[in-house]
Amino acid sequence: MAKEKKQEFVQHITPRDENFSQWYTDVVTQTDLMDYTPVRGCMALRPYGNRIWELIREHMDERFRETGHENVSMPMLIPESLLLKEAEHVEGFAPEVAWVTQGGNDVLQERLAVRPTSETIFCTMFAKWVQSWRDLPMKYNQWCSVMRWEKTTRPFLRTSEFWWQEGHTIHATAEEAHEEALLMLDIYREVCEDVLAIPVFSGRKSDKEKFAGARVTYSVEAMMQDGKALQAGTTHDFGTNFSEPFEVRFLDKDGTLKYCHETSWGVSTRLIGAVIMTHGDERGLRLPPAIAPFQAVLLPIAAHKGGVMEKCGEIHKQLKAAGLRIRLDDRDNVSPGWKFNEWELKGVPLRIEVGPRDIENGVVTCARRDTNEKFTLPMEGLAEKVKEVLEDIQKGMFDIADAFKTERTKDVFNMDELEQQVQTGYARAMWCGKRECEDAVKERTTATSRNMPFDAEPFADTCVCCGEKAEKVMYFAKAY
Amino acid sequence: MAKEKKQEFVQHITPRDENFSQWYTDVVTQTDLMDYTPVRGCMALRPYGNRIWELIREHMDERFRETGHENVSMPMLIPESLLLKEAEHVEGFAPEVAWVTQGGNDVLQERLAVRPTSETIFCTMFAKWVQSWRDLPMKYNQWCSVMRWEKTTRPFLRTSEFWWQEGHTIHATAEEAHEEALLMLDIYREVCEDVLAIPVFSGRKSDKEKFAGARVTYSVEAMMQDGKALQAGTTHDFGTNFSEPFEVRFLDKDGTLKYCHETSWGVSTRLIGAVIMTHGDERGLRLPPAIAPFQAVLLPIAAHKGGVMEKCGEIHKQLKAAGLRIRLDDRDNVSPGWKFNEWELKGVPLRIEVGPRDIENGVVTCARRDTNEKFTLPMEGLAEKVKEVLEDIQKGMFDIADAFKTERTKDVFNMDELEQQVQTGYARAMWCGKRECEDAVKERTTATSRNMPFDAEPFADTCVCCGEKAEKVMYFAKAY
Repeated sequence: MAKEKKQEFVQHITPRDENFSQWYTDVVTQTDLMDYTPVRGCMALRPYGNRIWELIREHMDERFRETGHENVSMPMLIPESLLLKEAEHVEGFAPEVAWVTQGGNDVLQERLAVRPTSETIFCTMFAKWVQSWRDLPMKYNQWCSVMRWEKTTRPFLRTSEFWWQEGHTIHATAEEAHEEALLMLDIYREVCEDVLAIPVFSGRKSDKEKFAGARVTYSVEAMMQDGKALQAGTTHDFGTNFSEPFEVRFLDKDGTLKYCHETSWGVSTRLIGAVIMTHGDERGLRLPPAIAPFQAVLLPIAAHKGGVMEKCGEIHKQLKAAGLRIRLDDRDNVSPGWKFNEWELKGVPLRIEVGPRDIENGVVTCARRDTNEKFTLPMEGLAEKVKEVLEDIQKGMFDIADAFKTERTKDVFNMDELEQQVQTGYARAMWCGKRECEDAVKERTTATSRNMPFDAEPFADTCVCCGEKAEKVMYFAKAY
Repeated sequence: MAKEKKQEFVQHITPRDENFSQWYTDVVTQTDLMDYTPVRGCMALRPYGNRIWELIREHMDERFRETGHENVSMPMLIPESLLLKEAEHVEGFAPEVAWVTQGGNDVLQERLAVRPTSETIFCTMFAKWVQSWRDLPMKYNQWCSVMRWEKTTRPFLRTSEFWWQEGHTIHATAEEAHEEALLMLDIYREVCEDVLAIPVFSGRKSDKEKFAGARVTYSVEAMMQDGKALQAGTTHDFGTNFSEPFEVRFLDKDGTLKYCHETSWGVSTRLIGAVIMTHGDERGLRLPPAIAPFQAVLLPIAAHKGGVMEKCGEIHKQLKAAGLRIRLDDRDNVSPGWKFNEWELKGVPLRIEVGPRDIENGVVTCARRDTNEKFTLPMEGLAEKVKEVLEDIQKGMFDIADAFKTERTKDVFNMDELEQQVQTGYARAMWCGKRECEDAVKERTTATSRNMPFDAEPFADTCVCCGEKAEKVMYFAKAY
């Protein structure tokens, strides 16, 4: 019976192997994470998707705070004159800016950009706020949405408006800014791995792929189940590229005025797309416990039988008191089988059933979403046991994704191997560092350079593309 | 010496009695809460101000969740056609909308409003999401910023962009929507009183003062130290005013399609302005412990003496572990006196000093920001003692503000009395209910109707203005 319902329930999800892209769209739209809106390319985050984002935010904020960062809120509109101050930056962003040109009934004298990113306004304010070396570093972050007028959009992966955090910091020395960019990259790696259960490659972007206006860009790159790359987060070392045109200067200990060294870094609601494409399966979402809005769902079986609902209420209370996010599904208009499938679809890590026989035996019946494994747990001390299971799920999900990533990453020594490898995963190649070779790889394979791992030992000495001398190890992959 | 520094430090704050408005501006700008930006009428929330807003948000979110509300995120841009659907609404908001007319290099076919409020986009999405009575109620909220192109702005009180929460709910019946609007008003009252230590008047707005498109608007009104009113939060019962043009319908139990009954409600960063103007004094801010970024500041005295910094570090750790927000000010480039004054200015509720003599005696020396009282506390069990003091400060601040509000509120029986009373506070008057009388009061006194208290017993039977029969009790006051 449950089996039958299940078939009924999941019939609308396209199999991953058949069409990964359609599978993604099916999962996203059927799990109430988001919805399309009448505003071109802009989505609405529904409670389930919004809650995931809030949980990601909590994990991030904790780490930002621990490393001495403070949250601020900057204006969402940026005068065009500020955008124009850094040439590369405006060139990169101008084509995708949404412009406010009217306020009330008046035409504005100067157009205002709906922020596509906030370097220019942060720099403007930093220039007001910093006086001496004693004020440094200033390490700020904001949570907001930004707008980039995209031609083609996909939920979470590429939307005109998206939600993100953007960190902006200024430092007295180039070394400190460099360290900051690397520190924040490592925090992104940690959140991806420990919170989202997504293994990533950390490294430095090529000059071609770096952020408009950056001296150096670093990234963490994840691998989706179709073997494609998803850039999960980036950090930028600007050097004095922005502080010079914006005149962000400080009086140093030696009595001279110096330009500040700046960084910025961001992750966005894109991460939710990464979670879906890293962990989802034929039955829908699979959420890592650390960001699951409900870590477990509690289902009464034969709810009409005496004592079942009371026991469920009791367990619910007990698990909530232990700090777990638990949903008691006491709906009486759908069958348990229907509920099984709905919560599977929505990716709740653990299902806990409580029926008359369970009560008799002093246990609850559990099913893990990740492995499908079924087992019982004693009611006595249940909260602690559930926590252990959730930790095991969190770890297990990471391990599976990590094994997949390892399996789908191969060293390649020539263009044929590269072309074949990027059909299903990441190609690790030696690269001479020239833009022409990146372009040639992209032209032939559609794959792009992802990043250069830190401290990587060269495993060959000629460029995968031109055959000339090469010292850099570069990951290439097709990317979202 | 400390005395001398203090004078130096506060010399730039205009006395409240001399010029309340200038006092406000001085406090706001000298306490690093916010700063002006190059974007007309838009402010930046600096870490100190932003943290206060985050803490207000946490207190609110907890209560929203407890009462069954869920957070979502809606697009920041709203197509003009949606705004036009509800006539009163567009009439109210159109004059202050910022319009996006260009995306990248293209001129848009339809203008997009930077949201001034989000009823129209919520209704559009509700119409997609609601099918049957089983889907109701839907109780959503979002935290975001909104934009209203204001002619004259003041930090926190009236800015073109401000941060807020906006709740939007739909219900099966008029009664439920009515109850929701009242419930959320009571939550606003509770947050104002218990968290911000600001006593408020709860009641219903006149038709003249209600929200554009609402059937009924309720408000909580606070009293500032200059006797003027500040509307701290509003809730709106829309009935079916929006659900009809937006076709937000559900299939009821009886098999017929019905329009949903809707509410919305919001509070904004204005509340920070209310905190400043309710509690601030000649020496700057006074923050209620519940929203103070630092509930206590820990100051080493004679920090160079052996053991002082170690003891401070220990106490800092201990108080933090107890869940208190504590700042250890270990700067060595300013004197303790300077620190005293800086933290007074910034309104930290409690100052804790630790010097060699304190350590010898096993105590810390404290000073309350609210009463200026100085006392010692034993180091043994300090965290619990500090919590007690903070609770006492929280309560004490409310009591003082409440006594002030009571003292500055008087029943008035004629226009002369009303005119005199609104010079320094709230006038409680009988009102016939006619718009003309509200207009006449405003014309003569600049005071506006604030709200009608629930279940108020009439204390006279003629209108304060026209002298005709009156049954409604109305608060009048000059307002921010």
